Amino acid sequence: MRADVVAIGTELLLGQIVDTNSSWIGEQLALAGIDSHFQTKVGDNVGRIVAAIRQALERSDAVVCCGGLGPTQDDLTRQAVALVLGVDLVFDEDRADLIRHMFGSRGREMPRNNLLQAYRPETARFIEQQPGTAPGFVANLEVADPEGTLVEKVIYAVPGVPWEMKEMMQGTVLPDLKARSGATDVIVSRVLRTWGQSESGLAEMLADRIEELDELGNPTLAFLASGIEGLKVRVTAKAATEADAVAVLDEEEARLRRSLGELVFGVDDDTMESVVLAQLVERGLTLAVAESLTGGMVGSRLVDVPGASRAFVGGIVAYDSRVKFEVLGVPEGPVVTLEAAEAMATGVRERLGADVGLGITGVAGPDAAEDRPPGTVCIALDVQGDVSSTELRLPGRRQQVREFSCITALGMLRRRLAGEPTS
Amino acid sequence: MRADVVAIGTELLLGQIVDTNSSWIGEQLALAGIDSHFQTKVGDNVGRIVAAIRQALERSDAVVCCGGLGPTQDDLTRQAVALVLGVDLVFDEDRADLIRHMFGSRGREMPRNNLLQAYRPETARFIEQQPGTAPGFVANLEVADPEGTLVEKVIYAVPGVPWEMKEMMQGTVLPDLKARSGATDVIVSRVLRTWGQSESGLAEMLADRIEELDELGNPTLAFLASGIEGLKVRVTAKAATEADAVAVLDEEEARLRRSLGELVFGVDDDTMESVVLAQLVERGLTLAVAESLTGGMVGSRLVDVPGASRAFVGGIVAYDSRVKFEVLGVPEGPVVTLEAAEAMATGVRERLGADVGLGITGVAGPDAAEDRPPGTVCIALDVQGDVSSTELRLPGRRQQVREFSCITALGMLRRRLAGEPTS
Repeated sequence: MRADVVAIGTELLLGQIVDTNSSWIGEQLALAGIDSHFQTKVGDNVGRIVAAIRQALERSDAVVCCGGLGPTQDDLTRQAVALVLGVDLVFDEDRADLIRHMFGSRGREMPRNNLLQAYRPETARFIEQQPGTAPGFVANLEVADPEGTLVEKVIYAVPGVPWEMKEMMQGTVLPDLKARSGATDVIVSRVLRTWGQSESGLAEMLADRIEELDELGNPTLAFLASGIEGLKVRVTAKAATEADAVAVLDEEEARLRRSLGELVFGVDDDTMESVVLAQLVERGLTLAVAESLTGGMVGSRLVDVPGASRAFVGGIVAYDSRVKFEVLGVPEGPVVTLEAAEAMATGVRERLGADVGLGITGVAGPDAAEDRPPGTVCIALDVQGDVSSTELRLPGRRQQVREFSCITALGMLRRRLAGEPTS
Repeated sequence: MRADVVAIGTELLLGQIVDTNSSWIGEQLALAGIDSHFQTKVGDNVGRIVAAIRQALERSDAVVCCGGLGPTQDDLTRQAVALVLGVDLVFDEDRADLIRHMFGSRGREMPRNNLLQAYRPETARFIEQQPGTAPGFVANLEVADPEGTLVEKVIYAVPGVPWEMKEMMQGTVLPDLKARSGATDVIVSRVLRTWGQSESGLAEMLADRIEELDELGNPTLAFLASGIEGLKVRVTAKAATEADAVAVLDEEEARLRRSLGELVFGVDDDTMESVVLAQLVERGLTLAVAESLTGGMVGSRLVDVPGASRAFVGGIVAYDSRVKFEVLGVPEGPVVTLEAAEAMATGVRERLGADVGLGITGVAGPDAAEDRPPGTVCIALDVQGDVSSTELRLPGRRQQVREFSCITALGMLRRRLAGEPTS
């Protein structure tokens, strides 16, 4: 089974919005075992949308159209699909009632235009699920293959708003596609999140296994450098049942963890922040951070995690050296040193009354400071009075140095906490 | 003149990498006055790359192929273009020398595979400019139109590594395309950055002018909601010379500023942070921030700006209420109040020895706190002892509430500082 993706919207062609929708849909199709060989972006022009859909139908069994379902004159997916199907647009009273009701229940007045969204190509049916105000639809059609035999194909139209698109894809389109494909194989993925080695370093550590898997073909491995989110190793397994696929993933994960050891900090949606916060909660410890070049990024990322307040107390952003000296008690003198980082960790731990203090100081660039080049970073931990520190040289420009400082510092805390007893 | 973009790489279809290259190329083509009606993603498969390029040639005068120029077996753009052109691949000794030299001058040993990059389709010529190790090339060809007349068209191949692609596009491909298109018009854009009104609110404020411009056709306006970067209003002007286009932009900017007033906080690459920091420097004032729900985001964004140290002193992240009470001197009691925000602003200003203090407290969600719903945010300013504060109700989920708190707080500071004398 093959599916083409057609992303609709002039703003996508003009680069005003990056088309992340087809990337996400492509990933989901792959996980559902459905091939996607072509993905097209086309603007808000009926003729060109029709051409893109027709062409997609020539080479695939299914076409997922994304966007162009809004209530304005620029939203042309309904018309284009009707033309491809060779049918009229009809006004669907039931859907109109639903749209009126959605506005009513939110206490909002409905702009008249929104009733445009109650039109559908005559032979299409609306998708029941409607997360936002834009309805999606699905239409079956028969297309002649090169020998003239009629082949059944399908067109889906889903909204361009990412969360609405995702809910409708997961709830309706993907299950429907899987049912049509008749594929009984289940494909499941798991991401191991790592930090501390480059992509080529990981590939070298796993070279033998990569070679074996290239021959076996199942499971497969893929590496993806993801900046402050770490370096992801994705394992994808195919099997007759979900339980079998999960068993393959479990075995492969265990094998990879044996090779990669403590480089693996989490799985799937884990972030370095969520992992560290969970460790702290498990050990009954609280954390305070003293940040210089990161400027509050570590605190902000920790607070991204709902429930951060169970372990994160707060921090002091000591950007100016005087704040380091006067608020944190760093001895006057150079501040890009292990001693300064240690004094910051201890200072913030004591002043904010936490169990653990983390101190980060360094040179983000573009200019050197204290004769230290950009990328020089000192990180210190104070765990209940037990202080340790490390100096690093990180690559990249200002923003990357700051982001790598953030994940590296939390990564050090993770390794240190792993050695502490849980309560 | 029309150009199609073909982005090549299986990782793009699988969603392992989001195709930001074609978005950027689409934007640049539009600015060069070249239409781009279709953009296609295709995987690492010779037959399908050939099909995608052939189809692009049917509907456009030029095709920009992006990616697939690396040194591995998966890099198939060279072969595919040779097939489209109906010519052989030839080994280019000069380019091979250049590639050997590039590795030599960086003191790196050259993997043998890299010499694959010295092959080019026989009738193509390498682009002189080569920012990285992957050479790009350009090939002219004649294609029969529907009436059988031969029409001259062109295929460009540029690397998939974004910075290499951008340098080659800007240095070679775009000037070449502009010369071929014979377009003498210059197209220039300017972005006004706004904060404080929704997209539909702005559209309403500018309704008369939007209608006028729809008739005039030049300049054009486009709105783009960009989260923590504000809501962008892009003005694009076309004219015979750059000076004329800039004059049109200047006039339109002045007109928009009269309608939008203080909603406009900056132009082009300005951010709310860079604008506020410039205001502080101009007035000889320093800033300290006390953050609760933002967790350090305001500080981190300020430090993103090189040279932030000229005005930003640092901050206190008072996530736990005890830090608010004990470190910042907030009176014990509820902390999602104007009084708490004001005490935070004053507390951080005094403790960090700054001229200006900013205090932010609120409920990020997902749960309510102190019986206040998620999105409730209190922001206070203390400018040299003169304190003011505001309570807001921001929309969205946890991350969005935190980001909107950040830009809204800095936006308030910007308006307040506009009234302070410059030194």
